[in-house]
Amino acid sequence: MLMDDMGWGDLGINGQPSKETPNLDNMAKEGTLFTDFYSANPLCSPSRAALLTGRLPIRNGFYTSNYHGHNGYTPQHIVGGIPDHEILVSELLSSAGYTNKLIGKWHLGQQEQYLPLKHGFHEWFGSPNCHFGPYDDKTTPNIPVYNNTEMVGRYYEEFAIESHKYLSNMTQYYIQEALDFIERMERNEKPFFLYWAPDATHSPVYSSPMFRGASRRGPYGDAVMELDYGVGVIIQKLKQLGLDKNTLVLFSSDNGAAMIGSAFENGSNGPFLCGKQTTFEGGIREPTIAWGPGFVQQGQVSHQVGSLMDWFATALDLASIAVPKDRIIDGVSLLPVLNGAAEFDRPIFHYRGNALFAVRFGLHKAHYWTWTNSWEEYNTGITFCRGEYLANVTTHEQVNRTLDPVVFQLGRDPGEKHPMKSSTSEYKDAVMTMNSIVEKHMETLKPGQPQFDWCDDSVMNWAPAGCEKLNKCLPIPKSNLQKCVWPH
Amino acid sequence: MLMDDMGWGDLGINGQPSKETPNLDNMAKEGTLFTDFYSANPLCSPSRAALLTGRLPIRNGFYTSNYHGHNGYTPQHIVGGIPDHEILVSELLSSAGYTNKLIGKWHLGQQEQYLPLKHGFHEWFGSPNCHFGPYDDKTTPNIPVYNNTEMVGRYYEEFAIESHKYLSNMTQYYIQEALDFIERMERNEKPFFLYWAPDATHSPVYSSPMFRGASRRGPYGDAVMELDYGVGVIIQKLKQLGLDKNTLVLFSSDNGAAMIGSAFENGSNGPFLCGKQTTFEGGIREPTIAWGPGFVQQGQVSHQVGSLMDWFATALDLASIAVPKDRIIDGVSLLPVLNGAAEFDRPIFHYRGNALFAVRFGLHKAHYWTWTNSWEEYNTGITFCRGEYLANVTTHEQVNRTLDPVVFQLGRDPGEKHPMKSSTSEYKDAVMTMNSIVEKHMETLKPGQPQFDWCDDSVMNWAPAGCEKLNKCLPIPKSNLQKCVWPH
Repeated sequence: MLMDDMGWGDLGINGQPSKETPNLDNMAKEGTLFTDFYSANPLCSPSRAALLTGRLPIRNGFYTSNYHGHNGYTPQHIVGGIPDHEILVSELLSSAGYTNKLIGKWHLGQQEQYLPLKHGFHEWFGSPNCHFGPYDDKTTPNIPVYNNTEMVGRYYEEFAIESHKYLSNMTQYYIQEALDFIERMERNEKPFFLYWAPDATHSPVYSSPMFRGASRRGPYGDAVMELDYGVGVIIQKLKQLGLDKNTLVLFSSDNGAAMIGSAFENGSNGPFLCGKQTTFEGGIREPTIAWGPGFVQQGQVSHQVGSLMDWFATALDLASIAVPKDRIIDGVSLLPVLNGAAEFDRPIFHYRGNALFAVRFGLHKAHYWTWTNSWEEYNTGITFCRGEYLANVTTHEQVNRTLDPVVFQLGRDPGEKHPMKSSTSEYKDAVMTMNSIVEKHMETLKPGQPQFDWCDDSVMNWAPAGCEKLNKCLPIPKSNLQKCVWPH
Repeated sequence: MLMDDMGWGDLGINGQPSKETPNLDNMAKEGTLFTDFYSANPLCSPSRAALLTGRLPIRNGFYTSNYHGHNGYTPQHIVGGIPDHEILVSELLSSAGYTNKLIGKWHLGQQEQYLPLKHGFHEWFGSPNCHFGPYDDKTTPNIPVYNNTEMVGRYYEEFAIESHKYLSNMTQYYIQEALDFIERMERNEKPFFLYWAPDATHSPVYSSPMFRGASRRGPYGDAVMELDYGVGVIIQKLKQLGLDKNTLVLFSSDNGAAMIGSAFENGSNGPFLCGKQTTFEGGIREPTIAWGPGFVQQGQVSHQVGSLMDWFATALDLASIAVPKDRIIDGVSLLPVLNGAAEFDRPIFHYRGNALFAVRFGLHKAHYWTWTNSWEEYNTGITFCRGEYLANVTTHEQVNRTLDPVVFQLGRDPGEKHPMKSSTSEYKDAVMTMNSIVEKHMETLKPGQPQFDWCDDSVMNWAPAGCEKLNKCLPIPKSNLQKCVWPH
């Protein structure tokens, strides 16, 4: 269960004062709550590609080389997508007899060769891109919704989103699809992998009329409540069918809560600095829960430093499938930790685009580059750190701190508010350790072919498979291949 | 149980990632967790005076008129203290047959006439002022520790505080005193009121060697763990003695976590803006739990907007004692809410010194004045909002916004990061409501005689009662009465 732009602070059990998540809070009580869990990137597409490949975006190609340290993703004019030579967890599970379904947002490329059913999924209900829009269908087509290999409509057309009213029934569809799939798999006695990826908490946020107005936070909180409801009924279904004993359920989010929209549409990063797009904790620390009475200790709070990429290795471990040996896999299996084994130290590398910005190891985090967004962008009112300003940390220039990293001790300073004094021995020791970790990392690093360098309006969702049957094909414009522009 | 400078975000159940408070988290599960509970002031002495009198500091005199909107408190050279004509909850409970004990910090004035045994308490173990120091005993004496009416030693002398090592056994003494008192009361079958006010989380923070190094946050987290341990054993004692059925236990803090010290010594205000000294949520929102199987709904999360002053009225309600009729009492009984009754709307007035800075009503909060601290002070490195800067909100001048208040909707924006646009009807409605609430409040307001205007070195703890027996009397210098200086 991968949420979209949901923040660490949005769970009741992580302190959200509006208490919108009774089912998730209960899931944590029945399973393991991770306090120190990271996305693989502060942005959606790279984070999702890393989840499914177990590899950093710099390796699987989900970055841009057009700029130093700029984020990229997969809007519908992107030419790139998930390369064929990347091995997805869905492909490995498929080979081992699992039936796999994606429900929700894909975001690994919208051209035909990149779609989920070409990459190990047997079923898919959802969309290849974000639910932005409505578009005019002349310069930009509305995003299609697929059922397996064919489109069944488009957002703002057959699949209504009333973004000014924050209304849409998509989450209800995604819940129903999940319940149907689980029931079907249980009837057929088939092992299954469900990748449930609703996007209601991504701007423009939405909920169904049943939940609209239900929270104290407005549309964003309403969306959280509906997703929490979904989590509740899905887990209830597993229990009803007796699947709770042999099913592992993982809940997390693709990156930190966004800070760019209005207060109505932004989640909470709890005590953490800044949000989505940044490598500060608010951009990458995720609300994360593992549940499964058969595999997961109940009521455990784990401070294990983890990454979305670990779920790749954990799933394979659970299914007794070997991890690919011909490439570097960044994720590690957390199955022992879920079982109650001791936590272990390991580094987490925080990239922004093609640049290593920060590293966490133990309770220390070193920033080798600092940047929020450019002065130019900031002066237009766009900020990723609203209400937060820390001299020499939340900088509006890219500042190279390789020789004197900014280091925080996250145990006593989770909010990254107190840079350690460089004169202390704790700082010097931490930097020495970090530097040697980075050196080792860099020695083995072979960046993948960058997928976010080229854009072309002709690759947009003009005429997705199935459009003929629905009479929904749009004329494809001439190719205008050009380097993608990534402002931050 | 009133903590000192503990922040809302320091409880595990409120999201502290270090999870140092298993006993408090459990107390919340067995009782009612308040998410929207306020101190009566962003500073210690006024907040404590308000707790015990049920009245705003502007009424009970715990403010200064030397400046507009500056905080004051009771350092040991303060001339003022709690006036005799103020009625304390201890006095009313005493008249009704209760035996009352204060364990820990008093802070309502250190001159003899102001001490707890003159104001309704029968027993006291603790100190009249903060555990600052060590002093040189020539220009400033170390703070005494009292046992009832007489001093039994001084901090940094008989009662060691190794502030550079963050070590002291005071919390253990306070725990033992509490257990002894409760056992004694139970044996005598006497109704009792215990005001447990340890100060280990106030800078210089400390814990006993048993807890030193136990947390992931350093000395502050260690102090929290020891206090949590204390809460646990006190509640366990009540259960053992069968007193859990007829005892109400309230846990809160006197103001938000300080942001002025080092990261080692500061707590967490969770998602809230700024800290102690300010009327932003970080300065006044408190971690608050009510427990008592006989009176308090189990497992309730209450969004009731509450104030420390409410415990005055709640305690009297529980003891069937009438609230004084001859004066305005700002607190209201929360007994029905504890029992599960519906939450109700009521305004909370946030003063800084003699000035009304902000009002909360419903989910809205209006700031009529904005200020953090002066540029002069800020430029020396002192900040109450470290890492946070919000234009026109966290101002370094006192800005009068009476005609165009800054309004936040705390349900969707608990962190006060998104001022509402003044063009919206929601803003206009909120301001109209707030203005009429303020007008009504001001009509009835008769400020008390200000207690923080005058300071004098001769009133310090040179020769407290009992000093002769211990040979601990210090020579009293000449009086040098002067207006107190309050920089912020």
